[in-house]
Amino acid sequence: MILNEAEALRTAATGQAPRLNVLAGRTVANLFFEDSTRTRCSFTLAARRLGADVLDLTSAGSSVSKGETIVDTALNLQAMGVGAFVVRCSASGGPHMIAAAVDVPVINAGDGKHEHPTQGLLDVMTLRQSLGDLRGRTIGIVGDIVSSRVARSAMFAITILGGNVVTIGPPTLVPKAFEKIECGPGNVRVSHDLDAELPSLDAIMMLRVQFERSGGGPAIISGDYRELYGLNQSRLNRLPGHAPVLHPGPVNRGLELDSDVMDDPKRSLILAQVANGVAVRMAVLRMLLANGG
Amino acid sequence: MILNEAEALRTAATGQAPRLNVLAGRTVANLFFEDSTRTRCSFTLAARRLGADVLDLTSAGSSVSKGETIVDTALNLQAMGVGAFVVRCSASGGPHMIAAAVDVPVINAGDGKHEHPTQGLLDVMTLRQSLGDLRGRTIGIVGDIVSSRVARSAMFAITILGGNVVTIGPPTLVPKAFEKIECGPGNVRVSHDLDAELPSLDAIMMLRVQFERSGGGPAIISGDYRELYGLNQSRLNRLPGHAPVLHPGPVNRGLELDSDVMDDPKRSLILAQVANGVAVRMAVLRMLLANGG
Amino acid sequence: MILNEAEALRTAATGQAPRLNVLAGRTVANLFFEDSTRTRCSFTLAARRLGADVLDLTSAGSSVSKGETIVDTALNLQAMGVGAFVVRCSASGGPHMIAAAVDVPVINAGDGKHEHPTQGLLDVMTLRQSLGDLRGRTIGIVGDIVSSRVARSAMFAITILGGNVVTIGPPTLVPKAFEKIECGPGNVRVSHDLDAELPSLDAIMMLRVQFERSGGGPAIISGDYRELYGLNQSRLNRLPGHAPVLHPGPVNRGLELDSDVMDDPKRSLILAQVANGVAVRMAVLRMLLANGG
Repeated sequence: MILNEAEALRTAATGQAPRLNVLAGRTVANLFFEDSTRTRCSFTLAARRLGADVLDLTSAGSSVSKGETIVDTALNLQAMGVGAFVVRCSASGGPHMIAAAVDVPVINAGDGKHEHPTQGLLDVMTLRQSLGDLRGRTIGIVGDIVSSRVARSAMFAITILGGNVVTIGPPTLVPKAFEKIECGPGNVRVSHDLDAELPSLDAIMMLRVQFERSGGGPAIISGDYRELYGLNQSRLNRLPGHAPVLHPGPVNRGLELDSDVMDDPKRSLILAQVANGVAVRMAVLRMLLANGG
Repeated sequence: MILNEAEALRTAATGQAPRLNVLAGRTVANLFFEDSTRTRCSFTLAARRLGADVLDLTSAGSSVSKGETIVDTALNLQAMGVGAFVVRCSASGGPHMIAAAVDVPVINAGDGKHEHPTQGLLDVMTLRQSLGDLRGRTIGIVGDIVSSRVARSAMFAITILGGNVVTIGPPTLVPKAFEKIECGPGNVRVSHDLDAELPSLDAIMMLRVQFERSGGGPAIISGDYRELYGLNQSRLNRLPGHAPVLHPGPVNRGLELDSDVMDDPKRSLILAQVANGVAVRMAVLRMLLANGG
Repeated sequence: MILNEAEALRTAATGQAPRLNVLAGRTVANLFFEDSTRTRCSFTLAARRLGADVLDLTSAGSSVSKGETIVDTALNLQAMGVGAFVVRCSASGGPHMIAAAVDVPVINAGDGKHEHPTQGLLDVMTLRQSLGDLRGRTIGIVGDIVSSRVARSAMFAITILGGNVVTIGPPTLVPKAFEKIECGPGNVRVSHDLDAELPSLDAIMMLRVQFERSGGGPAIISGDYRELYGLNQSRLNRLPGHAPVLHPGPVNRGLELDSDVMDDPKRSLILAQVANGVAVRMAVLRMLLANGG
């Protein structure tokens, strides 16, 4: 199972150990058509620590600016011997389109409001390190669920492993329809009252307020968002003592998450998520590419 | 001969084989002052698959934005131990200017409307794989010949190997003066009637309509361009059965080339051109840099 | 001492020698929030020639454009196993802020108008190759001293090694207060008259007129700047014959430095500075990172 693979790769993922050579001679291309620091760097480091070569393409400075479709770009890179694609784009389904055209693995690194699967994997990897078996556990996901690919992938990953999810936020951002998502033995519940949910959560995952995606309009993120849904020290105190805090980053300090909570070394697992991200991506790349895959 | 070198490197160029180490410790700098996906990636992969280190410079984020000349930039990089330059720029003769100033090899990766020599090499490498000896063969090149560095380099390469070229397009894009280009035992002829030429061609190379270079003005690319000079299924049927279709990419699907022709696995060599490009560039880099060159 | 380390690394820094492996498996991240060619490339080549992996981040295409602070970006990269940061930014003190937050080495690659320490090191390395011991020697630094981090770092490095500095330029760019900078056995003097100083200088370091930093306003760089403070052939002839010419680059040819002086192979050490820069940065990186540092 991929999470066990990732656990086994944690030391190799630290950057303190020698590179592995399992992907020596192979080339992984990052096709990032949206801004990204952590995800692009994480995949880059994961690939290189397995011995692979990495090619970085962004929409700027590429033939995409000459009007070539991303599918043709991918076909060309495949012809040059690229062995796998890591794709981030603003169009939901973009990686799927590419995967339908090429013969090599395509990894979704976040597509529009749809999915961000390796983020979901690193989230459950981090939760299991803290809570152990997720069966019967309740994880709160707080924020703009409706436009969050991170939330969607986390919900799938958590419920497949038997955990329950409470999605929490204002009705405009967390519609009731989310309860109909069926993806595993665990279930999904919708709540609009963070304070009521706090005492029963085994972990809380705060989402980024995505000004760049929503336009930051006042209709979507109202002025009292922080008051109703921000995680501050007082709310942290009402969480069970064993419940850790997660966030996919980048954090808007002082909006969805207060700085003292974010930097609390006992409760915040945010940097552990980042570290696990490299291990998860190494596991995914090795699974897809090693043994001539 | 460089094409034989390139043939010998085809396996090493696939990205499925271990890296060679002939250029270990050497640094190749890509100086790309124009957008490019395939050429920059192709040179990058070629250099790395020979074991070299690659440094990427574009005009954005470089001292060129502080007003330094590209020659001074190159002299500085040479002082840092860069062993070869790969230069793409919009000024015809730019690579030549740099080569006059530095002591290390400079490879022209496309300069303005002038030349794109490794493209010419990969074109004839691909043609020979399909047709064998080019002596006496007739290759049609269709499109905006007058502003195409690709066409110019292909004409040189084909006629040097004894092939004949028919340049085909409207009079504004294919002036009669091209017949005076003498570059090898083969000859160059000008035609404005694609349909009349089709039956006698041994291969057809479609050029990209370069909106970004011509400004896309209606005076240059008229509305009936596709009707008169686009390659569609009906025209493909009038080509001899053995005649392959080439295109330097990126393709404007549905303009100079219809999608079904482009994706025809029996006739289209477009992706073979891309794959050969890596092998050709490996051969060029090895020739110029190996043995302390 | 670091300059001796750098001297010992000169061959390894040329790009003609095999890579060292002392930093194999380690990752160095370039965080460049300002344009730079030579410094970024120099650090990149230095790190790779020691066997390290390099991650390039610029403000474009990174989460900094989503509003994340550079400190959070650095903390995230540290969690991914980045072993050292090289930071260039327009805010004086930026690298210091990052260093206060992370547990790994942070190297200042130029911060605002403050410091550029590896430039100071390569300057004294170059001066010592030409002049030997700097004790009692007089080095002129000419130009916009007040806003030059290069000048500040050179003044520290030269005076610590016992050399004396004369800062030369118009009163607006070289205020008297500079004489109060005490940083080593050598001393700092202010002069507004280049021609009067020429005969007593053992070396002259010309600074770049930084249009991009000053706004190029006529109040700062007046029309007679070149006439009063530019180094031309006539002024070069009035320098002692042993006195070399330095410049941190990129040079505004024909403004602060005439082309024939810049390209004089006997007097100009500008490209030697560039070559020494790679060796200095290798020494710094090895000192900070090798032996699990």
